[in-house]
Amino acid sequence: MLKALKNILSPEQVSTNQTILQQHSKDESYHTPSLPDIVVFPMTTEEVSKIMKLAYQYKVPVVPFGRGSSLEGHVIPYNKGITIDFSLMNKVLEIKEEDFLVKVQPGVTRTQLNKELKKYGLFFSVDPGADATLGGMAATNASGTTSVRYGVMRDQVRDLEVVLGDGTVIHTGNLAAKSSSGLHLNGLFVGSEGTLGCFTELTLRVYGIPEYVMAARASFPTVHDAVSAVVGILSAGIPIARVELIDEQSMKQANLFSETDYQEVPTLFMEFHGNEAGLKQDVEFMKEIVADYRCQGIEFETDQAELNRLWEARHNLAYAYIHGYPGKKLMVTDVCLPISELAGAIEHAREELEKFGLPGGIVGHVGDGNFHALLMIDVTSQEEIKKADKFNESIVLYALERGGTCTGEHGVGVGKQKYQEKEHGAALMVMEKIKRALDPDNLLNPNKIMKLTD
Amino acid sequence: MLKALKNILSPEQVSTNQTILQQHSKDESYHTPSLPDIVVFPMTTEEVSKIMKLAYQYKVPVVPFGRGSSLEGHVIPYNKGITIDFSLMNKVLEIKEEDFLVKVQPGVTRTQLNKELKKYGLFFSVDPGADATLGGMAATNASGTTSVRYGVMRDQVRDLEVVLGDGTVIHTGNLAAKSSSGLHLNGLFVGSEGTLGCFTELTLRVYGIPEYVMAARASFPTVHDAVSAVVGILSAGIPIARVELIDEQSMKQANLFSETDYQEVPTLFMEFHGNEAGLKQDVEFMKEIVADYRCQGIEFETDQAELNRLWEARHNLAYAYIHGYPGKKLMVTDVCLPISELAGAIEHAREELEKFGLPGGIVGHVGDGNFHALLMIDVTSQEEIKKADKFNESIVLYALERGGTCTGEHGVGVGKQKYQEKEHGAALMVMEKIKRALDPDNLLNPNKIMKLTD
Repeated sequence: MLKALKNILSPEQVSTNQTILQQHSKDESYHTPSLPDIVVFPMTTEEVSKIMKLAYQYKVPVVPFGRGSSLEGHVIPYNKGITIDFSLMNKVLEIKEEDFLVKVQPGVTRTQLNKELKKYGLFFSVDPGADATLGGMAATNASGTTSVRYGVMRDQVRDLEVVLGDGTVIHTGNLAAKSSSGLHLNGLFVGSEGTLGCFTELTLRVYGIPEYVMAARASFPTVHDAVSAVVGILSAGIPIARVELIDEQSMKQANLFSETDYQEVPTLFMEFHGNEAGLKQDVEFMKEIVADYRCQGIEFETDQAELNRLWEARHNLAYAYIHGYPGKKLMVTDVCLPISELAGAIEHAREELEKFGLPGGIVGHVGDGNFHALLMIDVTSQEEIKKADKFNESIVLYALERGGTCTGEHGVGVGKQKYQEKEHGAALMVMEKIKRALDPDNLLNPNKIMKLTD
Repeated sequence: MLKALKNILSPEQVSTNQTILQQHSKDESYHTPSLPDIVVFPMTTEEVSKIMKLAYQYKVPVVPFGRGSSLEGHVIPYNKGITIDFSLMNKVLEIKEEDFLVKVQPGVTRTQLNKELKKYGLFFSVDPGADATLGGMAATNASGTTSVRYGVMRDQVRDLEVVLGDGTVIHTGNLAAKSSSGLHLNGLFVGSEGTLGCFTELTLRVYGIPEYVMAARASFPTVHDAVSAVVGILSAGIPIARVELIDEQSMKQANLFSETDYQEVPTLFMEFHGNEAGLKQDVEFMKEIVADYRCQGIEFETDQAELNRLWEARHNLAYAYIHGYPGKKLMVTDVCLPISELAGAIEHAREELEKFGLPGGIVGHVGDGNFHALLMIDVTSQEEIKKADKFNESIVLYALERGGTCTGEHGVGVGKQKYQEKEHGAALMVMEKIKRALDPDNLLNPNKIMKLTD
C-alpha cells in the first residue's frame, strides 16, 4: 500500500515519520491517542480520488484530517490505516461577491478565509472559537457564537465536492440559493464526520460586513437571571447576532488568562449587527428587558479594539482553563436544548459539578440553547475519567429527556456514540443503512458516529 | 388488500368511489392524470403505520396526498396502488411560544396554521402561494415569497415523525435549535417527495410577527433594470423580507383578475420587516439604490388592507392566468440560479417565449434567483405540449450551465426527472443507493424524483 501511494504521490506527500504519525494520533480532547499507519498530504482532488481508490482496493481505513481541533476523537485513527491531511489544499479558489459565495479548498482555516474576505467587505459567519479548517467545520457541522443570527455550518454550505469511498467525485449541491431537485445530499454530508466521503472543495455562503456593530456586557446576580433575560430578548424579536453566557468561574479564568478586569459574576456578552438607527431602537428595548431580570450593570462597546478584546477573552476561555490546570486534559460537554429548558439545564449542570466535586465552568451559546461545561480532568486517573463521564452522562440524559440533543456543535466522534441509540431510536437504523449503502466495507473513518456490527 | 385495509380502518376511511379516485388522480399541473386503486384517510400515526405494513406485505405502491397542489405530478399514482390522503390529520397539536416551535399534523394547511399562530403574535414564514398542506410543503421543500429573509421549508423543519416503508416510525430530528448528532435525516427527508416515507407529524420553526412592516411597489422600464436593482439592494445588505418581480404581461393579467389598476410595466413588489427606525433608514437607502437602476416610480404601503391587496394580486397570478385562458392548462418553469446570472436568464426566457410563440408571463422570487415562466398550454395538442416542453428544456439547460438548478421550489415529481442526471451527475447514483437502501421494493411513491431500473 505504501509503495502504491508513493507511485501516485511525490515522496514528501507520503509519511510514516513517527513525529508526523503522532501529530495525527490525537485531537484537542481527553480521548486516547492512536497512531495511523501512513499520513498523506494530497494537493488536488485527483490525488484524493487516487488515494481513495487505492484504499478501496486494499481495504484500508481512511481518516480525513484538518487541524486536529475536534473535541470528541473524530480524527483519531483507532482502526489505523491512512490519514489524509488536507493542509496542502488550503487555497481560497474563488470569491463571487455578487452572489455572496466563496469557493475554498478544505484546508483553508476560518481566519484565513476572513482575512481574504475582508478586502471585499464580506465575512464568513461561523465562528467555533478554534481556528479550524472549513473542511473540518463542515464535517462536524460546527457552529459557535454567531449561529443565533447566521445559522450553523450546514446553513452556509451551498455545494460540496466529495470524493466517495470508491474514488468517485460528486457534487452534493449547486450555486443557487435554493433547490428542490433530487434528494438533499448537502445536508446529509455536512456533519457526516468523514464517514461518507472526503470533502475536496466547499462553496460557502458569506455575508456583507454589517454597517454598524454594537457589543454589550451585561452582569447578573445568577446564571438563571442571565438565561431568562436571553429568552426575553429573543421573544421580543430583537435580532441579536451573538449572545454568550459566561459564568462566575469562567469569568475568573478569563480575567486570569486574558488580563482583563471584568466583574466576576454571571455575564452575557452580546453583539448586535444592523444599521445605526435600527440598532439604537433595539438596544433601548433590550435595556428595558434585561432590567426586568435584575441586570446589575451593562456596558456598551462600539470601538473595534474593545470589541476584539471582548471576543478574544471569550474565545480564549478553553485555553484559559487548559493553562489554569497544567497536566490535566479538557473535557467539554455540549448539549443543546429548546431554549425554554435551558435555565433548568444549566442549573442542573452546576449542581452536578458540585456533587461530583469537579472543577470547571459553564459557558454557552445561549441564544441557541447550547451550553458547555468545561472540565479539567487528570487522564491518568481512571477514577477521575469515570467521574467526568458520569457527569457528562447526567447532562446528556437531562437534555435528551427534554427534546434536546447530546451534541449541539462538537459532533459525535467516539465520545457521544453511547448516546446515539437513546437520542435517535429507530432512526439510527436508517443512518446505518445509509452508511452501509455508501461505504459497504466500512473504510471511511470507521466506527465514528456509529459502530457497525455485522 | 382492500379487505385487509377495511379490517384496520373504519368503512368511511377506505374508498374506491370513482369521484374520490378521480380527485386523487391529478395535481394542479398539465401532467396526465392516473387513478389510484384505493384511497385511504388515516387519522393517526398508528393507522398510517398499519397501512404501510400492509402495503409492504402485499407489495403495493403508496402515494401520500395533501391538497394536490403540486405542479410536477408528484401525487399522481402512475403505478396505481394506495393513495394516503392526510386531510383528516389536520390538527395543530402544540404551540411552544417560548421556543418559537409548533407541532402539527401533516394535513394542516399554511393558512390554517397562520390563523392559529396569530393569536400568539407568531407566524409561519413559508408562503408558496397555494394553500398547500404543511406535509406536502415539507415533501417538496416548498418556499415562496419570504424565503429571501426566512429561508425555505427545510430551514423551518426541526423534527419530522416519519412512517417508513415497513411501518417503522422514526423521528428525524429533535427540538433543539441545532444539533451535530448522527447523520442529518431532517434535511434528507424534507424534499424527498414521499419516496422515503410518509410524514405524520412536523415540528416547525415559527417567528414573531414583525413590529413594523412596510411594503413598496417599484416600477422599472425593463425587467433587466428591476433585477439589477434587486442585486443592488441585496449587495447593500438591506434585509428585505420579500422581493417579487412581476413582468409587464403578468401585471396585465393581475389587473384583469384582481381588479387592481397597477401600472403595467415590470414591477418589484417588496416588503421590509423590522423596527420602525431601522426600516426608515433601510428604505431611504433602498430608494437611492433603485434610482440608480432607472426606477420610474415607487409607492409605499404600511396599511394592512393595502398590503393584503398587494400580496393577494401576486398570489392570485397563477389563477389569473388559468382564468384568462379557459380550457388550457398551466405549465410553470421553476429554475433558480446564482443571482448574478438571473437578469440574463430572464432575458433568455423572454426571448424563448417569443421564439416559440407561447403566451405567458414571467414572475420571480428574484431575491433567491428563482423565477417562473407561466405558460398556458392546450393539453389536447401534442404539438403545443412538445413546444412548451422544448421551451422548458431551454430554460433549464441555461440554468444548469450557470450553476443553477432545474427546480427552485416545485420539486422533481415526474416533470423534472429528465434533467436529474444532467444536474446531479454521479451524485444521482448516491441518491439511488439511499432510495434502494430505505425502500428496497420501490413502493414509496415509486418513479418520482428518479426512476429505478434494475
